[in-house]
Amino acid sequence: MHSENAHLNEVLDYIHAKAGKQLRPIVVLLSAQLCRGVTDKTIQTAVALELLHNASLVHDDVVDSSPMRRGVKSVQAKWSNKVAVLVGDYMLARVINTITEIHNSQILNIVAGLGMALSSGELLQLHANSSMWISEAQYFQIITQKTAQLFACCAEAGAESSAATMRQTTALREFGKQLGICFQLKDDIFDYTDAEEIGKPTMSDIRDGKCTLPLLISLERAPKAEAEHIKQLAEELYQDITDPVNAEQEIKSFVLRYDGVRYAAARMAEHKKSAIEALSIFRDSRTKEALLSLLDYAVNRDR
Amino acid sequence: MHSENAHLNEVLDYIHAKAGKQLRPIVVLLSAQLCRGVTDKTIQTAVALELLHNASLVHDDVVDSSPMRRGVKSVQAKWSNKVAVLVGDYMLARVINTITEIHNSQILNIVAGLGMALSSGELLQLHANSSMWISEAQYFQIITQKTAQLFACCAEAGAESSAATMRQTTALREFGKQLGICFQLKDDIFDYTDAEEIGKPTMSDIRDGKCTLPLLISLERAPKAEAEHIKQLAEELYQDITDPVNAEQEIKSFVLRYDGVRYAAARMAEHKKSAIEALSIFRDSRTKEALLSLLDYAVNRDR
Repeated sequence: MHSENAHLNEVLDYIHAKAGKQLRPIVVLLSAQLCRGVTDKTIQTAVALELLHNASLVHDDVVDSSPMRRGVKSVQAKWSNKVAVLVGDYMLARVINTITEIHNSQILNIVAGLGMALSSGELLQLHANSSMWISEAQYFQIITQKTAQLFACCAEAGAESSAATMRQTTALREFGKQLGICFQLKDDIFDYTDAEEIGKPTMSDIRDGKCTLPLLISLERAPKAEAEHIKQLAEELYQDITDPVNAEQEIKSFVLRYDGVRYAAARMAEHKKSAIEALSIFRDSRTKEALLSLLDYAVNRDR
Repeated sequence: MHSENAHLNEVLDYIHAKAGKQLRPIVVLLSAQLCRGVTDKTIQTAVALELLHNASLVHDDVVDSSPMRRGVKSVQAKWSNKVAVLVGDYMLARVINTITEIHNSQILNIVAGLGMALSSGELLQLHANSSMWISEAQYFQIITQKTAQLFACCAEAGAESSAATMRQTTALREFGKQLGICFQLKDDIFDYTDAEEIGKPTMSDIRDGKCTLPLLISLERAPKAEAEHIKQLAEELYQDITDPVNAEQEIKSFVLRYDGVRYAAARMAEHKKSAIEALSIFRDSRTKEALLSLLDYAVNRDR
């Protein structure tokens, strides 16, 4: 990653010191292993896709003005929006460079399509903010574009790097997509879970003006007047013109009362089932078990 | 360019309504024409590189907090930093998509290396702000990375799209680089030219904390005490803690007194000569004349 630019290197070192869970490269590696084995191309693909994920987080933190990332200050908070935009751009360029060096046009096509989905998914969510109240269908469109497509590409490109059959590649892509949906649903469920249980701040989505499944389904289920009252409250919270502690408590109670979290968990269970089904074409093996454990982790993790 | 995302399309339409001078795609097309003729690959390359230029401008306007672009509000001023970051990302992803569809690994490699140079060049300039006072060598490194490399790639990829010989490709790359250096030098000279003559705001670089050749050479030439005074003034101007009208007038007079603009113009003339020399391997033709006219325009334009 290093360049001749010392300032750039300083920021890159800072980002890479907090590596995160690295789920995406794990998906790449296991997908290749499940087909015909890990190759040099697999490893380069894993690196490139993790880097793409990290680049998009650096830009997302500008978009959401997030002060923290992985327990330390975000790049935009530590340096500036300017630095975060440019370092993110540099990382994206490095992704393209890495993918180009693989010399596999299929993998290149997979990644080339992905960047548009990621940015367009974030934009969809951003635009939804001006009318914060999205439908369930819009919600699934957004999380598919901004999260699930990347997991789908990790699995697909991993298979491709291993010279898999088309049937294997298609199955792994589907598994990755369903895994990604589960992963995002779990994240969105956490946001309505008591803070002591998960050890990280909750209700941050709604403070950022993002309406996720637990809330949107509760709004659909509640009587109109009550739903309108909660919408009003959430808008005031987003605009920072109400007492946040009371507003957050009221919205959280509302979501619990209408079983919004339980509904989201039920949908997650369905997508988990689809993920398992997608892998049914592969015979049992330690690698398949590992992918299923990853799915279990996505759904059952407590933080 | 259009996607299914209506908000994204609205921003893209806004950007494309003001097309700018489109010098970069002209360089791609003329370079191909000078070799073995324009092909479909040439046109796709021209589109992709103009799009890359536009994407980088959208992000640059976030970095510089620029209120205007091409006579209208910049994307970040009209919408927000968030929208500008994401729409720029979408455009960059579209560039990769377009380049991938060309199925030419040489062109792909040319463009893949470019993104890193662009962002790293901007970062270099940004970092220089914390110690605003760069050397002449650093100045040329910055303008090469942030401007000249893109012109070099336009010429090189244009030649490549036309199945040019390696000698032709190398010559055109050099021409593009020298043209780009001239272009940026001219822009930086404008910043110290009287506003009435060029019809656009001047002294904007120094207000953004960017020290360009006319000023840095004047600082080298002036007695130490005078140079220190001007540096102090420029830093106060950048930090917005001095009267801007007086400070700008004093810095401009200083640059004129030490012939900073004349020096930059002399350096530009040298690079123009190198550009002409690079084309000497091609015999005279209308296409070669057109490229030389473009060079003349870069150097002699009055806005």
